[in-house]
Amino acid sequence: MENFELTVLGCGSAMPTTRHYPSSQILNHRERLFMIDCGEGAQLQYRRNKIKFSRLQHLFISHLHGDHCFGLIGLISTLGILGRTSELIIHAHADAEEIFTSQINYFCRDLPFNIRFNAISPNQNEMIYEDKSLKVFTLPLRHRVPTCGFLFEEKEKEKHLIGDMVKFYNIPVRELASIKQGADFVTPDGIIVPNERLCRPADPVSRYAYCSDTIYQEKLIPLIEGVDLLYHEATFAEDNKTRAKETFHSTASQAATIAQKAQVKKLMLGHFSARYQDDSIFLKEAQEIFPNTILANEGVKINF
Amino acid sequence: MENFELTVLGCGSAMPTTRHYPSSQILNHRERLFMIDCGEGAQLQYRRNKIKFSRLQHLFISHLHGDHCFGLIGLISTLGILGRTSELIIHAHADAEEIFTSQINYFCRDLPFNIRFNAISPNQNEMIYEDKSLKVFTLPLRHRVPTCGFLFEEKEKEKHLIGDMVKFYNIPVRELASIKQGADFVTPDGIIVPNERLCRPADPVSRYAYCSDTIYQEKLIPLIEGVDLLYHEATFAEDNKTRAKETFHSTASQAATIAQKAQVKKLMLGHFSARYQDDSIFLKEAQEIFPNTILANEGVKINF
Repeated sequence: MENFELTVLGCGSAMPTTRHYPSSQILNHRERLFMIDCGEGAQLQYRRNKIKFSRLQHLFISHLHGDHCFGLIGLISTLGILGRTSELIIHAHADAEEIFTSQINYFCRDLPFNIRFNAISPNQNEMIYEDKSLKVFTLPLRHRVPTCGFLFEEKEKEKHLIGDMVKFYNIPVRELASIKQGADFVTPDGIIVPNERLCRPADPVSRYAYCSDTIYQEKLIPLIEGVDLLYHEATFAEDNKTRAKETFHSTASQAATIAQKAQVKKLMLGHFSARYQDDSIFLKEAQEIFPNTILANEGVKINF
Repeated sequence: MENFELTVLGCGSAMPTTRHYPSSQILNHRERLFMIDCGEGAQLQYRRNKIKFSRLQHLFISHLHGDHCFGLIGLISTLGILGRTSELIIHAHADAEEIFTSQINYFCRDLPFNIRFNAISPNQNEMIYEDKSLKVFTLPLRHRVPTCGFLFEEKEKEKHLIGDMVKFYNIPVRELASIKQGADFVTPDGIIVPNERLCRPADPVSRYAYCSDTIYQEKLIPLIEGVDLLYHEATFAEDNKTRAKETFHSTASQAATIAQKAQVKKLMLGHFSARYQDDSIFLKEAQEIFPNTILANEGVKINF
């Protein structure tokens, strides 16, 4: 595994089909799981894809349309039966707490773990989560209800000390932390040893942007510039361009245009409308604009 | 198809597995669909089993545990997207209306059809539905929350007129209806022609009893005597007999004992606990008591 491993649990849209579950993904960062959206059947997909329920830490809901959250109550119920004790944090629009708490109170009495709702502001681009190695930001999107995407961004990593140099200069342990952050070393004789002689560069950081659901909007571009992977909804192909606009969705070409303008490294398309029997049309239309495009599919894993 | 066709959409218990969806069934009677319970993923199973959404008329919820109703909101949402206009009637415990209405109001604004909740009394054995060919009764069960099973019973059918006899006696059309109900015919000369000479017997009626979830209770026996098919929960095998009692569930042997004492024609077991990797233990234990037992499974269809 590289920095992130993304598993697609579902990449259909409002109406599930025999081919696609509704939206749901698992982002694995250092064996902690971050779940993005939770359509109906997400917990079934956990089992099918051998995702460990106990590793789930945070759940991010892009918007309160059913195909992005109807699986929440079932997942919570199962976490309870499995005896989870650690807190689950759900980042979602402020309405989520009321809607889901009343269901949880009725259906999941005596839940052995606490659920904390973090009310996010979908129209802001702000940090909603931070730990020692990762930050998560909201990405304002434009849909029929308040909606945001999520940017998962690794923090700058420490440089790698070169062991032989540390020994050679007999560098005291107390100075190693600052050297890993980039400091030079000054010998007892006052000689400055530049940091580049003591360290190899830090591993590159990875960034993942999830953008679903949204109408085409160029405001998004600067916020996701250069990400390693962009998941962008492509509910429709060009044949339904008008319908895409009316329903505040995107076409595959529009998703590819965003990817190309933001110079992302790779684009994954998803949220396919049930009206398409064959998803290859999305790939074809997108690749004309942005060649490094792939299609989401249930069970697809991608490392980056 | 005979009188009924039952399709099992899910026969797992509280925790779904890769083998079983939570509880849900479709009973087809003369191309009208009666749905029994609606666990998460039921709408996905509609598609997989090519069940026509538009044919759904009535939905019966045995009790308000999640594995019997978490699929309801997703199904309703999809019926809305599909443009349903005819009323959907949901027969369930009185609490259902409040719980689901608040979800429906939030997630399914502008639903193009009406939903009517019929509050049933799970501790009564009473008729909750009747049309010209079918009656449905509640069957009181004992579980951790108010729960009932459902008995689907065809009404007595009319006899079949023997066309040649009708001609021979030149029977007026206005008398045919009563003859089909069993009346004799009196000729203009005053001769009584007994009904048996004018009609072939009516087709036999079919009865289906759905009993999930429940602890073993013999009170159920007289209510389901002689049914063509009994679906009875068998959450556990004998190895977990104590746990069955504690959780108000049944073992396969107990289900078979009910079937045998009620002299039903056929028993189908379901609601299998996720702890069993192989359901054949249920079949083996039940058949020792009631040989005409079969196992439920996703996609199983049975005509009776």
